[in-house]
Amino acid sequence: MDALVIPAKKPRLDGKAKNPPTYRSELKDKEGSTTITFTLKEKVGILASALNVLHSHNVNLHHIESRPARNNPESFEFFIACDNTTGGLKQAIDDLRDFSENLTVLARNPSKTEGNDEIPWFPRRIKDLDRFANQILSYGSELDSDHPGFTDPVYRERRKEFADIAFHYKHGQEIPKIEYTPAERKTWATVFKSLVDLYPTHACRQFNHVFPLLVDNCGFREDNIPQLQDISDFLKDCTGFQLRPVAGLLSSRDFLAGLAFRVFHSTQYIRHGSKPMYTPEPDVCHELLGHVPLFADPAFAQFSQEIGLASLGSPDEFVKKLATLYWFTVEFGICRQEGELKAYGAGLLSSFGELEYCLSDKPEVRPFEPEKTCIQDYPITSFQPIYFVADSFEDAKIKLKHFAATIPRPFSVRYNPYTQSVEVINSKDQVINLTKDIKGDLSLLEDALSRVNN
Amino acid sequence: MDALVIPAKKPRLDGKAKNPPTYRSELKDKEGSTTITFTLKEKVGILASALNVLHSHNVNLHHIESRPARNNPESFEFFIACDNTTGGLKQAIDDLRDFSENLTVLARNPSKTEGNDEIPWFPRRIKDLDRFANQILSYGSELDSDHPGFTDPVYRERRKEFADIAFHYKHGQEIPKIEYTPAERKTWATVFKSLVDLYPTHACRQFNHVFPLLVDNCGFREDNIPQLQDISDFLKDCTGFQLRPVAGLLSSRDFLAGLAFRVFHSTQYIRHGSKPMYTPEPDVCHELLGHVPLFADPAFAQFSQEIGLASLGSPDEFVKKLATLYWFTVEFGICRQEGELKAYGAGLLSSFGELEYCLSDKPEVRPFEPEKTCIQDYPITSFQPIYFVADSFEDAKIKLKHFAATIPRPFSVRYNPYTQSVEVINSKDQVINLTKDIKGDLSLLEDALSRVNN
Amino acid sequence: MDALVIPAKKPRLDGKAKNPPTYRSELKDKEGSTTITFTLKEKVGILASALNVLHSHNVNLHHIESRPARNNPESFEFFIACDNTTGGLKQAIDDLRDFSENLTVLARNPSKTEGNDEIPWFPRRIKDLDRFANQILSYGSELDSDHPGFTDPVYRERRKEFADIAFHYKHGQEIPKIEYTPAERKTWATVFKSLVDLYPTHACRQFNHVFPLLVDNCGFREDNIPQLQDISDFLKDCTGFQLRPVAGLLSSRDFLAGLAFRVFHSTQYIRHGSKPMYTPEPDVCHELLGHVPLFADPAFAQFSQEIGLASLGSPDEFVKKLATLYWFTVEFGICRQEGELKAYGAGLLSSFGELEYCLSDKPEVRPFEPEKTCIQDYPITSFQPIYFVADSFEDAKIKLKHFAATIPRPFSVRYNPYTQSVEVINSKDQVINLTKDIKGDLSLLEDALSRVNN
Amino acid sequence: MDALVIPAKKPRLDGKAKNPPTYRSELKDKEGSTTITFTLKEKVGILASALNVLHSHNVNLHHIESRPARNNPESFEFFIACDNTTGGLKQAIDDLRDFSENLTVLARNPSKTEGNDEIPWFPRRIKDLDRFANQILSYGSELDSDHPGFTDPVYRERRKEFADIAFHYKHGQEIPKIEYTPAERKTWATVFKSLVDLYPTHACRQFNHVFPLLVDNCGFREDNIPQLQDISDFLKDCTGFQLRPVAGLLSSRDFLAGLAFRVFHSTQYIRHGSKPMYTPEPDVCHELLGHVPLFADPAFAQFSQEIGLASLGSPDEFVKKLATLYWFTVEFGICRQEGELKAYGAGLLSSFGELEYCLSDKPEVRPFEPEKTCIQDYPITSFQPIYFVADSFEDAKIKLKHFAATIPRPFSVRYNPYTQSVEVINSKDQVINLTKDIKGDLSLLEDALSRVNN
Repeated sequence: MDALVIPAKKPRLDGKAKNPPTYRSELKDKEGSTTITFTLKEKVGILASALNVLHSHNVNLHHIESRPARNNPESFEFFIACDNTTGGLKQAIDDLRDFSENLTVLARNPSKTEGNDEIPWFPRRIKDLDRFANQILSYGSELDSDHPGFTDPVYRERRKEFADIAFHYKHGQEIPKIEYTPAERKTWATVFKSLVDLYPTHACRQFNHVFPLLVDNCGFREDNIPQLQDISDFLKDCTGFQLRPVAGLLSSRDFLAGLAFRVFHSTQYIRHGSKPMYTPEPDVCHELLGHVPLFADPAFAQFSQEIGLASLGSPDEFVKKLATLYWFTVEFGICRQEGELKAYGAGLLSSFGELEYCLSDKPEVRPFEPEKTCIQDYPITSFQPIYFVADSFEDAKIKLKHFAATIPRPFSVRYNPYTQSVEVINSKDQVINLTKDIKGDLSLLEDALSRVNN
Repeated sequence: MDALVIPAKKPRLDGKAKNPPTYRSELKDKEGSTTITFTLKEKVGILASALNVLHSHNVNLHHIESRPARNNPESFEFFIACDNTTGGLKQAIDDLRDFSENLTVLARNPSKTEGNDEIPWFPRRIKDLDRFANQILSYGSELDSDHPGFTDPVYRERRKEFADIAFHYKHGQEIPKIEYTPAERKTWATVFKSLVDLYPTHACRQFNHVFPLLVDNCGFREDNIPQLQDISDFLKDCTGFQLRPVAGLLSSRDFLAGLAFRVFHSTQYIRHGSKPMYTPEPDVCHELLGHVPLFADPAFAQFSQEIGLASLGSPDEFVKKLATLYWFTVEFGICRQEGELKAYGAGLLSSFGELEYCLSDKPEVRPFEPEKTCIQDYPITSFQPIYFVADSFEDAKIKLKHFAATIPRPFSVRYNPYTQSVEVINSKDQVINLTKDIKGDLSLLEDALSRVNN
Repeated sequence: MDALVIPAKKPRLDGKAKNPPTYRSELKDKEGSTTITFTLKEKVGILASALNVLHSHNVNLHHIESRPARNNPESFEFFIACDNTTGGLKQAIDDLRDFSENLTVLARNPSKTEGNDEIPWFPRRIKDLDRFANQILSYGSELDSDHPGFTDPVYRERRKEFADIAFHYKHGQEIPKIEYTPAERKTWATVFKSLVDLYPTHACRQFNHVFPLLVDNCGFREDNIPQLQDISDFLKDCTGFQLRPVAGLLSSRDFLAGLAFRVFHSTQYIRHGSKPMYTPEPDVCHELLGHVPLFADPAFAQFSQEIGLASLGSPDEFVKKLATLYWFTVEFGICRQEGELKAYGAGLLSSFGELEYCLSDKPEVRPFEPEKTCIQDYPITSFQPIYFVADSFEDAKIKLKHFAATIPRPFSVRYNPYTQSVEVINSKDQVINLTKDIKGDLSLLEDALSRVNN
Repeated sequence: MDALVIPAKKPRLDGKAKNPPTYRSELKDKEGSTTITFTLKEKVGILASALNVLHSHNVNLHHIESRPARNNPESFEFFIACDNTTGGLKQAIDDLRDFSENLTVLARNPSKTEGNDEIPWFPRRIKDLDRFANQILSYGSELDSDHPGFTDPVYRERRKEFADIAFHYKHGQEIPKIEYTPAERKTWATVFKSLVDLYPTHACRQFNHVFPLLVDNCGFREDNIPQLQDISDFLKDCTGFQLRPVAGLLSSRDFLAGLAFRVFHSTQYIRHGSKPMYTPEPDVCHELLGHVPLFADPAFAQFSQEIGLASLGSPDEFVKKLATLYWFTVEFGICRQEGELKAYGAGLLSSFGELEYCLSDKPEVRPFEPEKTCIQDYPITSFQPIYFVADSFEDAKIKLKHFAATIPRPFSVRYNPYTQSVEVINSKDQVINLTKDIKGDLSLLEDALSRVNN
């Protein structure tokens, strides 16, 4: 291990990468860049009338659904995905606004024209995450010229295989099992060996609690690269987190949106064998050894989801701040446990070099305060000069919620794990329903109290 | 329509059927009739030691899993399914009891020996419902001699096809699409036509709110038998309810347990064409026209789930009472809306004859009071002489919770929709966690209040 | 004891008394019949400007106070009591409405003119109850001609003494001690003796729990008439309830309003000695033996307060309904405890005859259902033909709250026991504050859970 | 104003005063230094049996009371104050322990013998605060030799008058009105004038919100020294805080205990006229101009009460820490409001010199973090070198609660504002009752939501 070794980094969360990836035209979002949601009061024939408006303006519909409205028991809610290149869309929306309520326009690229009230698009249901597959910033085999595998045609071909799996993956499917090659398994073994001895002393308590369970249940071993589906099933049992294969880098907005659904976009390929201790991008070593154990912890899972929920429909400037908070917590976070500093960030737990360094007296250490942390610059190709320390995941979550309360959004969001969808809360009826739910939980609390220890 | 027409009934909820179905030996629960769960304090090697105990007693293990313990952040939780015919099991359990905590033995048929503390088996995770497939009381083509299709070999063959689909179905799979025959579609059309005109005046508000959405989104039409998967997707979006095909009748205990997971076991076949207005058992007309619309209503969904949760691990006598409550609500419930009586029970909403009868002045009508309703006898082959009236689903749910609080169980249960599993609450740590969750919800409430109308 | 004995009754809750008492002109409410409350945004000089408006219209002010506004941290709240006979008041109110917020006009006798939005006056702070002293429906020595003491000048003189004490009593003062005469004590002894033997079998559990404490702490003995102040101190320790001497009958509206503050208006005199087992009006036997013990029970105290809170500012028709609910619970309520009926109403617990009768099989017994109970007629000079049975005080409270939710009022009320004042909730800020209070209580719950049993 | 001027300080919160005051023997706590509380299961004659135990050991009882037990509906709770110099007390306690539950011994000076489980005495009901009157550390006219009034016999005589008022004051009485002398009023005028111009720019928002209300309602004017009772009434209306005259310095434990009841012990005398800008001890200028305005703010009132509640029965070391937190918040706290620092501590708001200094760039400013702040040393006779900044009173309260959760006490405490008593929470029944109360509040929230804006 020498000083030149650079740890795994996740440039996907940073817009300032040297060669900023651009959206490829061939990957354009074919399913429609604009989603319109609105509610209509229940009335005979009302479902058809909404359709008529769209047809009369020749709007090209990709998808239409109607559901009972969440915010009013006497209304229907519509989800319409349509082509925003059609000229009539703007007028159709104006017409719809006249006879509907709560009309919201979610647009991939909200126009900046004054008076425009479009909200940045965000997934409302877990299957909407399928739309990210063709929104990746760079794709599989397209390696940068300084990538260790840039000149290795076999490696590039293999990367393409992984990218294709992810590109065609749909929510609810099994993630295909990979038969990793002996070379790939040797790379894994090298990384695995270098780290396991450090964990007992350097990783946080929650990590060390879960790790032996991953060994027993998911095949975390030096001689085996675990399979994403097995891990996803395990996490689902623990906290409801799921893994989803990803074909390349996502934008911060899309990546964080996944967390709102307790979905973690995970790579499946492994770094190039020529430099086992180095990777310029996330790989299966980083995901599995760095991220996976913590997602099995309920408090950490909640914290991660809160970052995701805060990002939905937020202005670009706040998504950037949330990505920075993600960087200094989920990727490079340190916490204090029984008086000692411990690592919980995946970038640390998957990097032999930085894991030792981060707990030494070399870097600067500051308390995690979202208002300040969210504007801290950071390098992406070297060890971090500054780390932020959380008192506990619970405490970090509460602080994050306080921060999220300052994000300008005309609604609150609530994740409904039954429907695996994000509910936009913008009516009194919904607040009353939430109050009823809380009362229900208090009844459960009462019941539990009366039974425990009796 | 004449007086001899007997409405669809669900004898699966009644143990007193004329020809009581028995467990078929060939369908014996092969995956092990006993499940043992316990927790162990985190310690190096502790996972292996539990296994050693079982091996030393030659216990035949079907399945073993370890997870972080819900009720203690420093412990692991074990789920072990094993063969209870092996002689050493009892001793192995005694040994385990010595060094573990919270050891619970869930047994299909708890022994009645004094001092035995086995609890009736219940599913802990949604995929455990797969185990019901081979626990059915009667199977597909095995029709009673008075069944309209008893002498129709084509119908019996067709019934076997449906049964096989359900028998092999596993959680998470798509429910196979059925190409219904013209004869089957004609039967559907007859039933459909007879009912739709009654709904506006006889069905409850929630039913009529959802029905047009089912028309638009799931193909509820006279000329089309909707597909279970389409409906299941729709319900999942509305309330998280899911359909699951079932090969025959389940015991009350198993059927109600499904509701705890918001899973409704639904038949997929249709009644015999010779008597379209009659069926001695639930069929696709009963499920789709009777049950499905209400499961899209959040308050009704919660109410149904509460019955399910109350049944888990409860003594037989209380499961019987809960089945009776299910009968008088989900199947034959009536509610008062704006001063008028309306039907919400599926047995009513799928029966032309009883739907008219139940709102007439012929039957007796009493208020829904679980303590009294749960011991009311009822006929299964004729119209009900007594109906029970709920003020609202919300009110019925609160009353049911009060009733459930009286069920003797040494624990509370809480459904975790993230992990789709039932959490057994028996420790103070869990109650504290629940308190934290409620505080989190209150923070959301606060946030929502500050944003709504601003 | 014979059948002609008529039990103590409280006609104060019934407007249909034979000789309806009228407001005496000499007792007219001198402190102003109209109260105006409003809020003003904080601004230099704003306090003076409100006064100027009133002065410019020559409004005769009785009292003016300014406080920080409850519903907005940047506003002041004004309480103004003024003479509504002055011509300029209406215009002054119109002017105030222009530059203030939340202006509410509370009037003793709201005018019925269309468009008038005056709300029936109600006390906002505990000391406002002092204003009831001169609103009594009949006064001290003014006995009806059929009163046992009508022709007894000594008794009438004595009654006047008691009336004067009450008439001059102000909130916060000690209630004067009474030196009861030997004749009065004999009357008490007769009543006391007749009842104590019945309590163990006929009174509810809570009554029998508290009674011995009253013996030990407040001198409840055959040979001693307890003092109101001693009892008030005891109740204050138990539930915060207080006694307040009253000079005569109050209107239902005023009497119930006292309960909102956990204040019970209690007579201090005793019935005429010629008929110790009979009284046509409440007396100290009825109050102390009937009412006092239950007010020491936390759940009953809450229930009573809820009736009071529901009445504040409610339309006359609902005050009448609440008075009827009061009658059938606090005065003549029966409850079911471990399968047996027990009396908890004061009218029963203070009447030897009716206490035996009410649990016999003679009267009709119905479940307490506020919607139905509130419209039930009842006799005031004979035993009740119908009683209503509560499952528990907790349950009765929940039902009452449901009923109260149907009362048309443009605000909610919350009693603040710190300030001993009623807060009118009509702003989002207040709802948010309430949410914060609840979170605070949950933190306490969390703390308590973590300490209990550790 | 010159550098020699020393601001008002409150040495009462510091044990390290130069001439440490000692308990005067003539002021010894005559009402008994030991309080015993315990519960007994309801049973005929049980009240007498407890007394018998005490009598049989010749324990000298000062007071005995029995009440319904808070933590068990079937038990009685006893409060016994007795003389702990009697030899038999220890044995009597041992005997009581045998047949009672939850026996707690509260002792003024808990013995440090090993195995002793006595808890430092604390008031349980608001009237228990009367016992502090003879526990003061120094009394009225006993001035230190460097006090400006040390050689002024008239001033010393006047101080004795004030001390006597406080010494004889009992809870519930009116605080006597003071006719302040022209000289005293001149001193007040000097202080008042020097400060009022600074408030708009230097005091926090809440202070400036309340100040004009005190001018209008309580006579806060240059030419008038307001009366404690008027202020106490005003505060009672705003937050339930009350003033109570105090004859001299209280120990930290006693002073903080007052805050738990929302009672502030206030001096009534004024500093010596020779040095109007200086006082070595709290005086009426400090209390009225410094403390009073903030106690009218609900969030600040809650924060202050939390310090008080945390102190009850806590070990000496934690009472010292809480006194330090009090010092750096209620006395010398600074907060950040819209980006600017503002003073909210009474020591600052009543000192012309320090109010300017504290917001200058001379002192050091640190965030309020109870764990660190509570161990910070501070000078009591000069300006503070370090101030701690709160984000908001709400935030400070939450942080304080977290800190309080770390105090080792075998119970939680909850203030019951109805009974004006502190409830010791140590049973599951109480936790369940708390849960029910929270549900009640949620019902109110629901009701308020449904009415607001409708």
